[in-house]
Amino acid sequence: MRLRNIPNANIKLAQNERDFVANPADFKGRWHDLFGNNNPIHIEIGMGKGQFLTQLALQNPDINYIGIEKFSSVLLRASEKLETIEVNNVKIINIDALMLNDYFEKDEIARIYLNFSDPWPKNAHAKRRLTSNRFLPLYENILVKDGEIHFKTDNRLLFEFSLESLNNYGLILSNISLDLHNSDFPNNIMTEYEEKFSKFGPIYRLEAKFK
Amino acid sequence: MRLRNIPNANIKLAQNERDFVANPADFKGRWHDLFGNNNPIHIEIGMGKGQFLTQLALQNPDINYIGIEKFSSVLLRASEKLETIEVNNVKIINIDALMLNDYFEKDEIARIYLNFSDPWPKNAHAKRRLTSNRFLPLYENILVKDGEIHFKTDNRLLFEFSLESLNNYGLILSNISLDLHNSDFPNNIMTEYEEKFSKFGPIYRLEAKFK
Repeated sequence: MRLRNIPNANIKLAQNERDFVANPADFKGRWHDLFGNNNPIHIEIGMGKGQFLTQLALQNPDINYIGIEKFSSVLLRASEKLETIEVNNVKIINIDALMLNDYFEKDEIARIYLNFSDPWPKNAHAKRRLTSNRFLPLYENILVKDGEIHFKTDNRLLFEFSLESLNNYGLILSNISLDLHNSDFPNNIMTEYEEKFSKFGPIYRLEAKFK
Repeated sequence: MRLRNIPNANIKLAQNERDFVANPADFKGRWHDLFGNNNPIHIEIGMGKGQFLTQLALQNPDINYIGIEKFSSVLLRASEKLETIEVNNVKIINIDALMLNDYFEKDEIARIYLNFSDPWPKNAHAKRRLTSNRFLPLYENILVKDGEIHFKTDNRLLFEFSLESLNNYGLILSNISLDLHNSDFPNNIMTEYEEKFSKFGPIYRLEAKFK
C-alpha cells in the first residue's frame, strides 16, 4: 500500500468512535463483549482502505470483523469509508501484526484474511512477509481449531514463497487457485488494489488451516 | 500424450535390447545389477518420446535413468531416439504406474520425474492423476529417504490439484515455480510437449519429498 502521510491521522481516527478502537489491548479475550454478541470474529491483516472488509461485513451481518492496519494514514481512509455506511459488525485497529498476541487471546479468532500483503521482494526481508514462519505461530495461537487463513495476492514470488512456507510449517492447504479471476470461485470480493492491478496478471489465492 | 497406435510396437521395442527391458519384474530389487553400478536411479513416469530423459542421461552419466511409459506406441518413439545415441545409463520399460511396486523394491529409487502428466480433467477421474493419493503411497514406498518428486505441467487445474494433494498427504514442497520459463531455475530441460505448448501459458513446477 503506497501512502501519503496524513498529519494527525491518529487524532482523526479517534473521532470515529463507533468503528475505531484506540485501546485494543484492553479487549484481549473480550472482543465478543465489545461486539455485544458471540458471533465468530474474522480479521483482515493489512486492511488498506477497507473496501474488502466493508463489503464482507455488509454481506455477513452474523460475523464480526476486525480490520488491522499498521499505517494510520491508510487506516484513516478505511475509517472515512466506514463512517458513510450503516454497519455495526466492524472494528478497526492500528497495530503491527507482529504484536497480534498482545491484542487477541488464544482461540479468539475464527478466520484471518491476508490480501495483497507487502511482498518484501528481497530475500533478506523474507521474514517480514505475512506468510513467513515468523508470523505463522502468532496466527496459530489466536485461531480457533479449524480456523482458516484466506490469502490472495497478485505477486507470483510471494505466492510461491507462501505455498512453501505454509506447507513447510505443516498447514493444510485447500482451494488453491492460480488464476482466481478465471476460476469458478464464487463471490470474490475485490480489494481496491485488486480492481486496479488484476488486469496485469493472475490473482493467486489459497486457504490454509493448522493441523 | 496423443498417440497413433503402432502395430507390433512391443515386438519392435524388444529389438532394442540395449535400452528396452522386456521383463522388468525380474529386476525388482536388482536394478543396480542391471546397470552394473551403484549409482542412484531416477525414473520418469510417462516418459513420452523421451527427449527429457535422454538429455538428462547425457548430462548425468553418474545417474541411472529408467523411463516408464504405459503406451507402447509412444515408448517405441523413445526407443528409436535412444538407439541413435551413445548412452549406457538409460533403460525403458512399458508398465502402468499403478504397478510400480511390482517392479521396484522399497527404497530403490532416488528421484521420480513427472512431466506434463495427463490432467484427467473430470473430477470423477481425479484418482487417475499421477499426483493423486492413489499413487503417492507407491512413490513413498520405492523412494529412498529424502528422495524427491520433480513435477512440472502447463495444466493449471492439475497443478492446483497437485499442490493440494501433495500437501494434504504430508509431503514437503520446495522450489515451487508458477512460471518456470520466467524464473531463475537453472538448466531446465524441456520435453517435446513443453517446447510446443509453453508459448500458450506458464509452466508450473515443484519439488516434493516425503517426511
